[in-house]
Amino acid sequence: MNASNLSPNNARGGIGLLGVGIVGSAVASSILSAEGQRRGLRLCGAIVRDTTRQRDVELPAGTLSSDPDTVLGSPDVDIVVELMGGEEPAMEYISVALCAGKHVVTANKEVISKHGEKLRNLATANNVSLQYEASVGGGIPIINPLLNDLAANQILGLRAIINGTTNYILTQMASGGVSFDDALADAQRLGFAEADPTADVDAFDAVYKISILARLAFGVDVPIENIFREGIRRTASQDFRYAEELGYTIKLLAAARRENGGLLVRVHPALVPSDVPMAKVEGALNVVEAEGDLVGPLWLQGRGAGAEPTASAVMGDVLRTLSVLRGGGHLPQARPINPDLPLLEMARHECKYYTRLTVRDRPGVLAQIAGALGDMDISIASVLQMDSDPDRGNADLVIMTHPAREANMQRAVERIDALGDVGTVANVIRVESYPSAR
Amino acid sequence: MNASNLSPNNARGGIGLLGVGIVGSAVASSILSAEGQRRGLRLCGAIVRDTTRQRDVELPAGTLSSDPDTVLGSPDVDIVVELMGGEEPAMEYISVALCAGKHVVTANKEVISKHGEKLRNLATANNVSLQYEASVGGGIPIINPLLNDLAANQILGLRAIINGTTNYILTQMASGGVSFDDALADAQRLGFAEADPTADVDAFDAVYKISILARLAFGVDVPIENIFREGIRRTASQDFRYAEELGYTIKLLAAARRENGGLLVRVHPALVPSDVPMAKVEGALNVVEAEGDLVGPLWLQGRGAGAEPTASAVMGDVLRTLSVLRGGGHLPQARPINPDLPLLEMARHECKYYTRLTVRDRPGVLAQIAGALGDMDISIASVLQMDSDPDRGNADLVIMTHPAREANMQRAVERIDALGDVGTVANVIRVESYPSAR
Repeated sequence: MNASNLSPNNARGGIGLLGVGIVGSAVASSILSAEGQRRGLRLCGAIVRDTTRQRDVELPAGTLSSDPDTVLGSPDVDIVVELMGGEEPAMEYISVALCAGKHVVTANKEVISKHGEKLRNLATANNVSLQYEASVGGGIPIINPLLNDLAANQILGLRAIINGTTNYILTQMASGGVSFDDALADAQRLGFAEADPTADVDAFDAVYKISILARLAFGVDVPIENIFREGIRRTASQDFRYAEELGYTIKLLAAARRENGGLLVRVHPALVPSDVPMAKVEGALNVVEAEGDLVGPLWLQGRGAGAEPTASAVMGDVLRTLSVLRGGGHLPQARPINPDLPLLEMARHECKYYTRLTVRDRPGVLAQIAGALGDMDISIASVLQMDSDPDRGNADLVIMTHPAREANMQRAVERIDALGDVGTVANVIRVESYPSAR
Repeated sequence: MNASNLSPNNARGGIGLLGVGIVGSAVASSILSAEGQRRGLRLCGAIVRDTTRQRDVELPAGTLSSDPDTVLGSPDVDIVVELMGGEEPAMEYISVALCAGKHVVTANKEVISKHGEKLRNLATANNVSLQYEASVGGGIPIINPLLNDLAANQILGLRAIINGTTNYILTQMASGGVSFDDALADAQRLGFAEADPTADVDAFDAVYKISILARLAFGVDVPIENIFREGIRRTASQDFRYAEELGYTIKLLAAARRENGGLLVRVHPALVPSDVPMAKVEGALNVVEAEGDLVGPLWLQGRGAGAEPTASAVMGDVLRTLSVLRGGGHLPQARPINPDLPLLEMARHECKYYTRLTVRDRPGVLAQIAGALGDMDISIASVLQMDSDPDRGNADLVIMTHPAREANMQRAVERIDALGDVGTVANVIRVESYPSAR
């Protein structure tokens, strides 16, 4: 294929695996398949915590070890594939591998989100590549399209459903009328959610992912502390019922968009109009919607998690790395940092709001609430009195506002809550704006 | 960025443009932009037929010429970008450029579809790259995902809407009840269709594109003569009306799928269930749905044509080429040819059929038609008598069949047409099967 001086085509195909869980097993299977062998891939070593555990894949004798040095220190290993997850020791191992002149492929969103800049610099300094397509969106090609195919675009915005667990839970709540707790328990039973669901339901996972995408799309390093984050724990089954009556469903969105001369990055549940495509991305599916100045709107959708979709992305990175390293070349790095695009505070965001209040069912209540909103320059688009509970003298009141500033809305909520006997704000959900026909 | 011996980072960024039409102008603008200059791109020459014509972009003095040698023979040109379209002389110029050791980026679906294998071999032999992301799907990343991101997958099938002109016409017919001729005239007036619309409405364009995708996805060289091709000229406004009553819309689909131990590649109008996402891809949008054994179903959607989306893909290729050539490396080539996947004849395809007949409105007619179908082992799922024209004694009869073999259906149509006074088969449209929930 090329005039490389590495005459056998399978030279430099040595792979060391860090972690052999469900994704690692699928990756090992792919390396060991007939097709993997034809491409000259060799599994040189695989590091696990417990070498005695039963696994989904049969590894060649002598490859399994609990000592990371057998991979990180092996001259046979050209590419280290990190699939352990978590920040440490993954971060340490990736750093050691890069410094040892090994190419690295990882699916680790936490490490790339928190330490991507440092690791990219380490890769450049050591003349090796760092690939992480599998860190966002499972098998959906998104990292590499942003790095390569869309490189000539100024990206205007990204909007995504990038956490399959919460999308599964929200889809169950939307269709089944079940509570958050029941939907979560169901997701845990089916293996869609972990025993400790915090990373997913409190939206840390989506925050890691949108920070990675924002770095690539906008050339802005986005520390995760600077991303507005709200999870789905407060979303109740009646919110879906009321949203549906108003023509919406509820999705956990991750978005990054140029606005007001800066970049706003946010992750939160949102009311999405029922007739836009994003409302129909159901279950564990993921989607990334990107808008470029040249390409216009793009829609990339697929399975965002699971062993095989993730292995698809990991193996794509391995084969890409191999093809370039055999030719002696380099893979494109991220855009340079753009110093002219400051990160904006969520307080400056503007949108319509859905507000569910539990109020005393008596005259004058609406006037007080409307007054509190009006004081903060928020005008009401519609008011719906929903379920009432005559025994307790309570009713659900749903107020949809016209577009308002986030800071004003937060102040208005405080004021309403301070009204005393009037009622409480049970939930506020931002309404996502869809200016175009999409 | 790397230890290249080409010290100034803008070394080897010389670009020669063949063709400065609407796409070429957008590409030239991108090269000449501040961002293009920052990346070290230089426009060394631009070849047009008529150097006196007014263009959308102001080119630097001395770049415009009608002599292709000023680009193909220039030592300053590292990358030749071919945007002339058509088979010749584009094919000749691309070949000359590759033989002269220049990297080539092209948007030319006809050349890649007809001569891709020869050109890829020429590129390999001359140690240069050939990139053609813009040849299919405008700005949607699809060629490179197939080449790289999905490289570890066995692709099971592709299904796509990849001709914006026909999708615009069909969308107009579906929503406006207009005739094919009126919708075509409208598309021509708006610049969505050419004065000679053959390439689009007779589906040659979609055939070129699916042959390119099939080569990359399946490792099979698909001569365009081996692709079943049917355009949209026969699709009438009443077909949309009847299809809608049956729960379908009509789309021009391009598909390539493993079935019966081979690969079937086909382009034709199809009834698509109104509730699947593909039914909602409207206007000039394109979509490619791919299914891989690892990744599962993927959905890539965006603007499939137009100056800027196409320029997005062309410039993505230019930057990718540049980044790798500066490092002295190589871009991945297509999968090797898979000798074990024969091309199948359309005659072996199996699907349900929508059949619109114009029949004499009198007793016994249905029995004769049903008999002709039954003789060919085709069973009827439903019969609808639609508009009748009492003056002429005619009626429209719509028959939906159960799944049947294409060869049998074609024979049944011949038999019905031969029944003489009974009536004629006005149109037959294949019903696309959606086994999964999509």
